[in-house]
Amino acid sequence: MGDPAGIGPELCLRLLNRADVAERCQPLIFGDPALLRRVSDRLTPTRGSQFQLDAPILTWADLESNQQSEPRPAIVDLTLPDTADVPPGKVSAVAGRAAFHYLDRAIEASLQGLTTAVVTGPLHKEALHAAGYHYPGHTEILAEKTQADPIVMMLTSPEITCSLVTTHIGYCEVADQLTTERICETIQLTHDAMHRMRRRKPRLTVCGLNPHAGEHGLFGRQEEERIIEPAIAWARERGFEITGPLPPDTAFVPRKREQTDAYICMYHDQGLIPLKALSFDDAVNVTLGLPIVRTSVDHGTAFDIAWQGIAEVNSLVQAVDLAILLQNAPASTL
Amino acid sequence: MGDPAGIGPELCLRLLNRADVAERCQPLIFGDPALLRRVSDRLTPTRGSQFQLDAPILTWADLESNQQSEPRPAIVDLTLPDTADVPPGKVSAVAGRAAFHYLDRAIEASLQGLTTAVVTGPLHKEALHAAGYHYPGHTEILAEKTQADPIVMMLTSPEITCSLVTTHIGYCEVADQLTTERICETIQLTHDAMHRMRRRKPRLTVCGLNPHAGEHGLFGRQEEERIIEPAIAWARERGFEITGPLPPDTAFVPRKREQTDAYICMYHDQGLIPLKALSFDDAVNVTLGLPIVRTSVDHGTAFDIAWQGIAEVNSLVQAVDLAILLQNAPASTL
Repeated sequence: MGDPAGIGPELCLRLLNRADVAERCQPLIFGDPALLRRVSDRLTPTRGSQFQLDAPILTWADLESNQQSEPRPAIVDLTLPDTADVPPGKVSAVAGRAAFHYLDRAIEASLQGLTTAVVTGPLHKEALHAAGYHYPGHTEILAEKTQADPIVMMLTSPEITCSLVTTHIGYCEVADQLTTERICETIQLTHDAMHRMRRRKPRLTVCGLNPHAGEHGLFGRQEEERIIEPAIAWARERGFEITGPLPPDTAFVPRKREQTDAYICMYHDQGLIPLKALSFDDAVNVTLGLPIVRTSVDHGTAFDIAWQGIAEVNSLVQAVDLAILLQNAPASTL
Repeated sequence: MGDPAGIGPELCLRLLNRADVAERCQPLIFGDPALLRRVSDRLTPTRGSQFQLDAPILTWADLESNQQSEPRPAIVDLTLPDTADVPPGKVSAVAGRAAFHYLDRAIEASLQGLTTAVVTGPLHKEALHAAGYHYPGHTEILAEKTQADPIVMMLTSPEITCSLVTTHIGYCEVADQLTTERICETIQLTHDAMHRMRRRKPRLTVCGLNPHAGEHGLFGRQEEERIIEPAIAWARERGFEITGPLPPDTAFVPRKREQTDAYICMYHDQGLIPLKALSFDDAVNVTLGLPIVRTSVDHGTAFDIAWQGIAEVNSLVQAVDLAILLQNAPASTL
């Protein structure tokens, strides 16, 4: 459900009312039934039946004992004190604590095999901090709770897919953190995920670090030759279909995008600038390397429009569909 | 004409045959008439009249004495020894020397007021080097010959315009070269150019350096607060319409692009990744800060398809049109 004060609750209501989604999977909302009721009562009179709430409410014990008579969309009751009274659009420790609790339980359910995938709604970092949880975001919580290492952040849309070798660090820290080993990990996990998604050997494109990929050492410190090329050679030996290091500015032109299933990007903005320029509304965030399947919306809590019924559910539906695809697909044969 | 062995000559032939272009300006091809004749004779039989050559040939003296009876498209004869025998698609010192000579004379003609703008075809860096000219590209030749400083590289298309604070340096050199003064220069020259192009006060968007623009110092070394924000404050005091520093990944989403006439980008790929992803075929390169108007195609010599008559003339026509616009427009009123 994400942060109760954000757009997560109304997106969950929309999802519960999507008959097409219920045909493809059984959505279980890990959250607060009373708060969902409040949001539904507020939106249904003016915004209509897409915000209705008539899903059954399950307890954790129900989940463990698989007590459902039929697999229909439902809410898993994770009520904490005071959450039902949270107002929309405000940072609060109560909301931060609740959002962390839903996420923690969702991860636990997947780890125990009670669910097959986790799809996360948006968190608010300040609310998490106010509640005493000091993480940069979802990914770090998932890594800690599942003790997964290495993990890779990948963003994917129908138009373009980018995996990040480095993520939330300063511009100047990137070169120091680039290692051949880390690039190999990113290539391996991306290859495996794209193989599951495409059901064939994926074509990977690796970006250089410097302008023009260094132009044979003319710019930069030969990071392409020293660090990136050995990782590509390693991947080729494993039989991967891979090309690079490409000049970053021409790597994302239309002709190259047609030939690429996923890009291996050296830093956050190298991947996210083209991804968001080309696919702002329908990108999904996936964490690779976890023992569970986890996808996420690619937007924030949008406190400025929370509980108004105008937030788009497209990214959440895309995240659900990708989770279905990833948990159903056979693992890489390579 | 650019490098004789590349696609420059055939693009010049196409341009000479464009009646619509001749209505808007008088194109003067600075190059080699005999070589243009060879390319024309090769392409006209199979590719048709768009490669015909019947333009008059002028000497430098004609240009100086303004001897043309009517302002029609023409060739300025800058024949050097051996150039007419250059084969297509090969790096050679002969071609490099010729390409440099055409550029040098074109700059000189504009400096002397014999022409009103320079539009450059593609050079080949290795050919220049073979001829003994050691420049990273056009821009540095223009800066040296016109003794201009500061200059700024701007790329523009109908979809997006980006000016670069730093250009052809290594990834790790960027942070050291970022100064408030250099960002101010880039903002000022971009504001002036966009004012001429749009004929109204342009809206500028400045990107941060770090992911999420540093997120209030969480990532990076506070380059946003220390270096970028003072430049934005300076520009606001001058009355510029300017916003930033924005998180680079969300700066280029469609809604932000609609609100932006030009982006101020901290490094080469920050600007060129979104520009080429969104506008590969119709972008034009402009050098700001020169005493002359200079625009350029945004592609290379394309040796692999040289003299085949299949190269697209769109970027060259766009570059010509932008040169017309820049030399006709009134200077910024701010």
